[in-house]
Amino acid sequence: MHQSIYIGIDLGGTSIKMGMIDKQGRLLYSLENPTPVKDGYQGVIEAFDTMLNNLLKVHGYTQEHVQGIGIGVPAFLDLKKGIVIELVNLQWKNVPLKELLSEKWSVPIKIDNDANAAALGEMWAGAGKGKTHLLCITIGTGIGGGIIINGDIYHGVNGMAGEVGHITVREDEAARTCNCGKKGCLETEASATAIVNDAIEKVKHTSFGPLREEYDRMGSLSAKSIIHLAKQGDRTCTEIIQKTAHILGKTLAQMCYLINPETIVIGGGVSHAGDLLFNPLKHTFNATALPRIRENTTIVPAKLGNHAGMIGAAWLIHRLDVFQL
Amino acid sequence: MHQSIYIGIDLGGTSIKMGMIDKQGRLLYSLENPTPVKDGYQGVIEAFDTMLNNLLKVHGYTQEHVQGIGIGVPAFLDLKKGIVIELVNLQWKNVPLKELLSEKWSVPIKIDNDANAAALGEMWAGAGKGKTHLLCITIGTGIGGGIIINGDIYHGVNGMAGEVGHITVREDEAARTCNCGKKGCLETEASATAIVNDAIEKVKHTSFGPLREEYDRMGSLSAKSIIHLAKQGDRTCTEIIQKTAHILGKTLAQMCYLINPETIVIGGGVSHAGDLLFNPLKHTFNATALPRIRENTTIVPAKLGNHAGMIGAAWLIHRLDVFQL
Repeated sequence: MHQSIYIGIDLGGTSIKMGMIDKQGRLLYSLENPTPVKDGYQGVIEAFDTMLNNLLKVHGYTQEHVQGIGIGVPAFLDLKKGIVIELVNLQWKNVPLKELLSEKWSVPIKIDNDANAAALGEMWAGAGKGKTHLLCITIGTGIGGGIIINGDIYHGVNGMAGEVGHITVREDEAARTCNCGKKGCLETEASATAIVNDAIEKVKHTSFGPLREEYDRMGSLSAKSIIHLAKQGDRTCTEIIQKTAHILGKTLAQMCYLINPETIVIGGGVSHAGDLLFNPLKHTFNATALPRIRENTTIVPAKLGNHAGMIGAAWLIHRLDVFQL
Repeated sequence: MHQSIYIGIDLGGTSIKMGMIDKQGRLLYSLENPTPVKDGYQGVIEAFDTMLNNLLKVHGYTQEHVQGIGIGVPAFLDLKKGIVIELVNLQWKNVPLKELLSEKWSVPIKIDNDANAAALGEMWAGAGKGKTHLLCITIGTGIGGGIIINGDIYHGVNGMAGEVGHITVREDEAARTCNCGKKGCLETEASATAIVNDAIEKVKHTSFGPLREEYDRMGSLSAKSIIHLAKQGDRTCTEIIQKTAHILGKTLAQMCYLINPETIVIGGGVSHAGDLLFNPLKHTFNATALPRIRENTTIVPAKLGNHAGMIGAAWLIHRLDVFQL
């Protein structure tokens, strides 16, 4: 006889991750399938259903064991109505996801955005475990954020809380234009994309060195390769990571004056730079924040990697127990 | 037979305001006395006691009617222990205010900082009435802030949440040094003090005009007189207020990416500039914030003036009923 479990789904632009999670936030089993991008939301819902049935069957569970299903979606949402307002990568607009899923599944269904799900995962079972006030930043192609206040995710008035990628961090001539239309957004200046753009600018003016060689060999650059070269001691790449760290450290300090979190968790691909990123980041943070802030804020790397989204999505169901809803 | 009431105290560097507040957040009666600055905390506690007895007696109430006493203090606090860590204006350090008052009064006693009390007052009975997510900024000599989340004040991990005066808004050579030791803090660039400093810089380079005349007549300038001249159409003073509005509008937009409030309430002396401040401030805010932020955030002037602190302090007791604590 199995215990009852939660299902956490992380819907991404390239893959769907689905996990079976126990009441302690442990990922028991998981499954990853490509996202059927071209089949519209109907295709994705079909994929969810097939994956769920497989996941349960393979491990000897039935729908009876499922206490609820949480889904993290990389989109703006109407949380009250469970509607995906816009999911750019899949070209969804105004999809009543919760209602559509309720027609298939008779358990509680909760949705939230992917950055919030990742934050909840880290709070429940990762680097923010046991903390009540948390700021989680995911630094990948873009920069997303989730804010935990009093042990719960905080959405703000219309779900924009934690959308830190669009904070303006640069206003001079060299500030880059963001997809949002503004200039000098945190995510144009300190994301994986920014690191690549910084490196490409450097390459343009260099005819030798490891970065140039990487570029000539691959025809392009990735944040991963730049971080790799920095770890091997390449000075240009190290400086690019340090610049990123400096911008992040300064901006995080500003955020702390507003929300004064206990812990800042930093995840996403760029966080894999490790000490190369975290040491200068903390240095700038400590130089920017007042003593009462810096002495009470710890900055740590995320722990759950790409499991955070699934685990956090499952927490959306666990939440019903936590707050006795 | 009187109803039971709350007592709200606003402890300031120059005066103590004490109000009798009903359960709807209405200020029934109030009293204002000079703060006995030189008599230490013992003197202030004596003053509280005398004022309370007078306030009750004059209006035919007794201590039996007092359901609890809330106090707003312009200081860093240890909220759990009820200790004033540092109150610069009165030279208090580590004063166990709550404990000392509990020896005199046998009703619930709650303390919070003055900016949070003002925010709570505006939420309960002022410009933020009925809103659940609120950012309140008080722009006077310095800049203070209070954050309301889910209808309750949010303190962060050690009471620093909402300390927005120390957000860095300027990094160039001309950024002014703040009391905190940093440069270009919001409160050195956009407070009443900043307005005066801006005007003094202008006066240095002008030998005529209303601002120069005011300066020659008074030997100094005040934000109040600069706002007055701006309202009368003086161009230099108008430009100073517009510059302030621009910095505030831009910074408030950044804050909204983090906490996405429903309403931003702006109070304090500088807010008396009215449309002269609010129009350019909103213009910059709307130009800086993404549509989903600007369409869902209203910016309004505070309503309660210097009653906000007393009413909000009383809410600290009302809170026990609201959240059934």
